[in-house]
Amino acid sequence: MTAIAELVALLAPGKVVTDPEVADSYARDRTFLEPGKPLAVVLAETRDDVVAVLGWATTHRVPVVPRGAGTGLAGGATATEGCVVLALHKMTAITELSPADEIAVVEPGVITADLDRAAREHGLMYAPDPSSYEISTIGGNLATNAGGLRCVKYGVTRDSALGLEVVLADGRVLNTGRRTVKGVTGYDLTGLFVGSEGTLGVITAATVRLRRAPLIYPATIAAEFGSPRDAAAAVAAIIAAGCQPSLLEMLDRNTLQAIDDWKNIGLEPSTRAMLIAQSDAADGPAVSERMSELCTANGASFVAVSSSVQEAEELIGIRRMAYPAKERMGKCLVEDVCVPRSSLPYMIEKIEAIAVRHDVRIATVAHAGDGNLHPVFTFDHGLAEPPPNVWAAADEVFRETLAAGGTLTGEHGVGLLKQRWLSLEAGPTAKELHHGIKQVFDPLGILNPGKAI
Amino acid sequence: MTAIAELVALLAPGKVVTDPEVADSYARDRTFLEPGKPLAVVLAETRDDVVAVLGWATTHRVPVVPRGAGTGLAGGATATEGCVVLALHKMTAITELSPADEIAVVEPGVITADLDRAAREHGLMYAPDPSSYEISTIGGNLATNAGGLRCVKYGVTRDSALGLEVVLADGRVLNTGRRTVKGVTGYDLTGLFVGSEGTLGVITAATVRLRRAPLIYPATIAAEFGSPRDAAAAVAAIIAAGCQPSLLEMLDRNTLQAIDDWKNIGLEPSTRAMLIAQSDAADGPAVSERMSELCTANGASFVAVSSSVQEAEELIGIRRMAYPAKERMGKCLVEDVCVPRSSLPYMIEKIEAIAVRHDVRIATVAHAGDGNLHPVFTFDHGLAEPPPNVWAAADEVFRETLAAGGTLTGEHGVGLLKQRWLSLEAGPTAKELHHGIKQVFDPLGILNPGKAI
Repeated sequence: MTAIAELVALLAPGKVVTDPEVADSYARDRTFLEPGKPLAVVLAETRDDVVAVLGWATTHRVPVVPRGAGTGLAGGATATEGCVVLALHKMTAITELSPADEIAVVEPGVITADLDRAAREHGLMYAPDPSSYEISTIGGNLATNAGGLRCVKYGVTRDSALGLEVVLADGRVLNTGRRTVKGVTGYDLTGLFVGSEGTLGVITAATVRLRRAPLIYPATIAAEFGSPRDAAAAVAAIIAAGCQPSLLEMLDRNTLQAIDDWKNIGLEPSTRAMLIAQSDAADGPAVSERMSELCTANGASFVAVSSSVQEAEELIGIRRMAYPAKERMGKCLVEDVCVPRSSLPYMIEKIEAIAVRHDVRIATVAHAGDGNLHPVFTFDHGLAEPPPNVWAAADEVFRETLAAGGTLTGEHGVGLLKQRWLSLEAGPTAKELHHGIKQVFDPLGILNPGKAI
Repeated sequence: MTAIAELVALLAPGKVVTDPEVADSYARDRTFLEPGKPLAVVLAETRDDVVAVLGWATTHRVPVVPRGAGTGLAGGATATEGCVVLALHKMTAITELSPADEIAVVEPGVITADLDRAAREHGLMYAPDPSSYEISTIGGNLATNAGGLRCVKYGVTRDSALGLEVVLADGRVLNTGRRTVKGVTGYDLTGLFVGSEGTLGVITAATVRLRRAPLIYPATIAAEFGSPRDAAAAVAAIIAAGCQPSLLEMLDRNTLQAIDDWKNIGLEPSTRAMLIAQSDAADGPAVSERMSELCTANGASFVAVSSSVQEAEELIGIRRMAYPAKERMGKCLVEDVCVPRSSLPYMIEKIEAIAVRHDVRIATVAHAGDGNLHPVFTFDHGLAEPPPNVWAAADEVFRETLAAGGTLTGEHGVGLLKQRWLSLEAGPTAKELHHGIKQVFDPLGILNPGKAI
């Protein structure tokens, strides 16, 4: 019996897909990266499926690439040649939702926004909200330690992860963490798995923290600026004034243009940047008024303040259109650098200069309150991968980021895409420790090889 | 030349203490645990001192026990026989404090409250505030992932740690993390070091997150109850109502009695429990009013609401007196169990029943909003260690905690004290991984042997 025949025999009918065309559709994430050819795709439905796959993979030394919804932007779920893709999107149970303890226990395939909606029925919310939250899974969010729009106030996915059930490379099941909001028994294995991109184990359940949802829809403003530097200065002023926004996003001209070309939002020719901000605090309307004044004081030409839930949702909707609008313009290399907040104006100017110098189209959105910038490099739909000038420009952006005390990836992960720059940030000692840890968890190196570290 | 003579020669005069009596004063933390005899104590003043000590310790295979201010409650800094105690309390520089980036870079010996005060000069605060924050160090707080009173709203020490400078067992210097609020490059080494009790490396600098300080002193209430169960029910009601207190503490009768015996706070005979709560939100006074109503609705006989900063500080002062008041009553075994919030009433009753059954005096304070209970078992000053009935009672408390889905330690760490119960919570797979990680960072096993894992 071949190894694949053994795998088919281990699992219920229909769970192992070997048809190359179907398999290929599970081999890609949202990057342009061309995947290797998987041996098979497993559509896991239970923890026991995952245990069976990893036990089998250990026996046969077959690499396993775990996968959520494939919305990743760094190649973390890109299939490697001869691997088994372990798809977890069918594990969609919200096993428990406890309003009293403000926690939920979920399977990895739960769509992030679905959990948020389930929590809101109890006056709670699941805070992490990556832009993809309507299509991405909790498992994928955990694997990349996803951020999002609200994380300026509520933190990243790791800050909401209390405990995990993980299947280790050899098929053993490990429980980490707890149901309590605090705890220091032993090393922080939960935090270690979060952001490890499926290289240390496969998460089959997570206990996550829920938070109290704001009682009213957050007051929302959108401010238009004649220069991105002014917008960045307004961000600094909003932070320094202690406004504590629950969302603070910045869109540059190229992004706004892409949205306007698609949806006609009535973009003024003089608008070079937009800030969108929310406060969900009890005094949110007053804070929004204050943020609006700070935008005007920093040169905003126009500030819209929402007066209804619908208006607020429309303003946020502009932000959520950014990525699909750019995908219409060409293939995208989506970057994810993060700098100390005070370096935001500097980075915005550097990115603009780099775009000119390399004759590259870069459209940037930023989780401005976190200093997390997404410069999106677009290139011709006909090209298989970014042309040399795009790579050269990206390389410069990374180096400027690190020089400013920043990091290569704020929330998307290293995946395959950032492998070649990783050593610029993680020195030889850190790399040695990363690989030492990897060896402890996955001595055969079968879990998502070549990713993350 | 003996090993110790070599160490003395490596460091500036006065930094190596070998006088047994002085050394013994650095060999203990705040537990009753009798330490081993250290070979020497090093009073480190710089990172280079730490590098020298660890290089020397590697050469000579000498165990190193790192130490902050010795305020630990779990024996994490208790000296082992023949070790070198590496005292870091003289490294007290706040190297940087950036209001724009809302971060500080500090040496490990900085007193926690000193950092908080320095931040407040800029309208910021350092949120983690263990009860010992006026005497404990940031380094010690990082080593145990300390919590505190404000962590019901702002999280534990790990949530404020962005990056670390760590000296590894072999003397190499590692930088982890970043100056940004987000980042996912490589595994989360920062989170791994936090809470590892000095068993993976010695922290010589930390980049920590500061937060916006509330503009006014938080509105504060204190409510007296005739039964701890009523107080616990009020806690549940406050959480369920979405009050989001910035502090929510509970004191039982024995604790209040100890404070009253010491400071005469006018304790009523009928008072069996007290809740102290704060809200530092913009609508704090309204929230405090609401919390006060919820206490009354759940049976509070009396609720004091602060009408001035001084009154508020007096109410909080009662809570901060709890531990010193108990130390007057006898030697203390301070426990630190944490249960899901909804199990708080259950645990309170269990602890009272256990105290009666074993004829042990237990005085409990709780970070009630987190489900984190500190049952303090007092025993005769003349005894060297807890008598059998205290251990038996503690054992039962631990087992009840785990049965309720809780954890052995919410914020104090495992240290030496909880070693014998560790396997009840961390199963064999987790333990194997802990020891595998330890092996990667400290292959010779010289860093704080016998602690944490």
